Amino acid sequence: MTETLVNKRVILSDRPKGVPLAEHFTVDEAPVPELGDNQFIVKNAFWSVDPAMRGWANDAPNYLPPVEIGSPMRSFAVGEVVASRNPDYAEGDTVTGMLGWQRYTVTDGSNVDRKVSHPDLPSSLALGVLGLNGVTAYYGLLDVCDPQPGETVVVSTAAGAVGSAVGQIAKIKECRTVGITSSAEKGALCRDTFGYDEVINYRTEDVSAAVKAACPDGVDCYFDNTCGPISDAVMQHLALGARITICGTAALTDWDPIPQGPRVHRQLMVARARMQGFLVLDYKERFGEAISVLADWVRDGRLVHNEHVLEGADAAPGAISMLYNGLNTGKLLIRVD
Amino acid sequence: MTETLVNKRVILSDRPKGVPLAEHFTVDEAPVPELGDNQFIVKNAFWSVDPAMRGWANDAPNYLPPVEIGSPMRSFAVGEVVASRNPDYAEGDTVTGMLGWQRYTVTDGSNVDRKVSHPDLPSSLALGVLGLNGVTAYYGLLDVCDPQPGETVVVSTAAGAVGSAVGQIAKIKECRTVGITSSAEKGALCRDTFGYDEVINYRTEDVSAAVKAACPDGVDCYFDNTCGPISDAVMQHLALGARITICGTAALTDWDPIPQGPRVHRQLMVARARMQGFLVLDYKERFGEAISVLADWVRDGRLVHNEHVLEGADAAPGAISMLYNGLNTGKLLIRVD
Repeated sequence: MTETLVNKRVILSDRPKGVPLAEHFTVDEAPVPELGDNQFIVKNAFWSVDPAMRGWANDAPNYLPPVEIGSPMRSFAVGEVVASRNPDYAEGDTVTGMLGWQRYTVTDGSNVDRKVSHPDLPSSLALGVLGLNGVTAYYGLLDVCDPQPGETVVVSTAAGAVGSAVGQIAKIKECRTVGITSSAEKGALCRDTFGYDEVINYRTEDVSAAVKAACPDGVDCYFDNTCGPISDAVMQHLALGARITICGTAALTDWDPIPQGPRVHRQLMVARARMQGFLVLDYKERFGEAISVLADWVRDGRLVHNEHVLEGADAAPGAISMLYNGLNTGKLLIRVD
Repeated sequence: MTETLVNKRVILSDRPKGVPLAEHFTVDEAPVPELGDNQFIVKNAFWSVDPAMRGWANDAPNYLPPVEIGSPMRSFAVGEVVASRNPDYAEGDTVTGMLGWQRYTVTDGSNVDRKVSHPDLPSSLALGVLGLNGVTAYYGLLDVCDPQPGETVVVSTAAGAVGSAVGQIAKIKECRTVGITSSAEKGALCRDTFGYDEVINYRTEDVSAAVKAACPDGVDCYFDNTCGPISDAVMQHLALGARITICGTAALTDWDPIPQGPRVHRQLMVARARMQGFLVLDYKERFGEAISVLADWVRDGRLVHNEHVLEGADAAPGAISMLYNGLNTGKLLIRVD
């Protein structure tokens, strides 16, 4: 059957420096190769758009090698197995993994993370609240920050795919939650949908003063996706023994040279605080554990999410920069055409 | 007897901004007050000079309130009880604690940390390798960095009172040790006396290149007493899962405004590293535990130390700034006159 399949792909055609823009990608069509032994074909239903893709597209030291120019952009995706010569994967299985920005992915399973185990819920959730984003929130908050009941948890990009889950998980763990976001609209979402106790709009408020007011006993846990001026403001109000998860660097558009900012050393020392880098891929072996807890929270309505779905491959090239411009309202996905 | 005692004191007479200099202190003499119920008099033998005293003298947020103008400078000291109306302390006991820069300290014991429990060793050690410095090295390295055999441990201010103990404890724990210091003379001390495997002279070498060469597999543990350009260079070479103890900020002479430097966020994230502030006073309840292990290492020759003793109260006002100018060769002490 593979001869008849046309693979629509979004190729990284030029090397960005910083945030990848539409001009760095080309949409093309290519034949799908014959299945080799042990291979199978996934027809992708949704592609994911994640901040980490900036790092993958740049030629700078990272936890993964840069995507090669001329290859489909590396991304998470979810889809259905449509043909298989692999005994572990059958036609009709729904799988997710680093399947890339292409309509069809031929794989031996090495870039599949898992079969999707919640047939009662939409498959797109495997890319968001029941995937990378939810698991990031789960381990990044619970393992690194280890929030205790009654503690104050501050979340940057509070309405985002990761942040909104962090805030809700912190509430489930009986913490006070303070969300920092970029607009009144997102602020209302934080308050009304994601249950934050306090909301700060970083575009209109003095963030340091607002954090101080919202956290009279200081910040016990800070889940940071920005690493820029917002983070600098929060760091001025750490409680003794504060824990900070460094999960993303959305506020830093370029890493070469290393951007300057206020030194954190003394704040860490005075508060005896701990700042720790987090990468969800380190938890690959424990994804299932988190997803089953998260799925239960989704089912009983304690964990809600927003999706922002773009239609078709032609929307993909401009999608990553939307994340860095705060243009998405929820987990950003592309429905594959 | 107290009427006959004259208390020589070193008073904080002016508020420094940054490193306290000789001009911020005045040496005076005052009568020793009558002993009240439950009080006793300590005749101090040695005063300690520690980097933390900069923070105590400044009027900036700290873990302790600033020393009041007109009071003896807050400091650790060791001395002998010479009169007592307190049943827990007898004449002849050797005690150490925050006794201040004064010849005699009248106290109810609330600022005494402990009786000195190693009569076979000099009492001055209670201010150094068997006191604040040794315990700082012990818990700051073992609790925060948790070094494993075969790992590479980098130490800044490697020849200093804390750094030299860190390097030796890391060797006892079967790590490779790399010491960063400020002169060829201190470098030789690091290599020959403190057993560092590699030594970097930050005044004559490119620190980043030297760290890279000395740590081909990256830096697993970094015990930092500087938080300036040396730290910035080390942070470029973190191994996966690196742990960084922020123990002192010797390289930052002023904290207001917060000094700028390269952001550490991305390095922490890429290495999934942990940077943690450490304050030895948090371990007060566990000092005895560390000191008994450290004393055994001193007795069997595995842990050696250098002392740099200044003579008399008149040497005290200029002593703190010596630490920040790298002028001391070993734990800096003042022998009380």
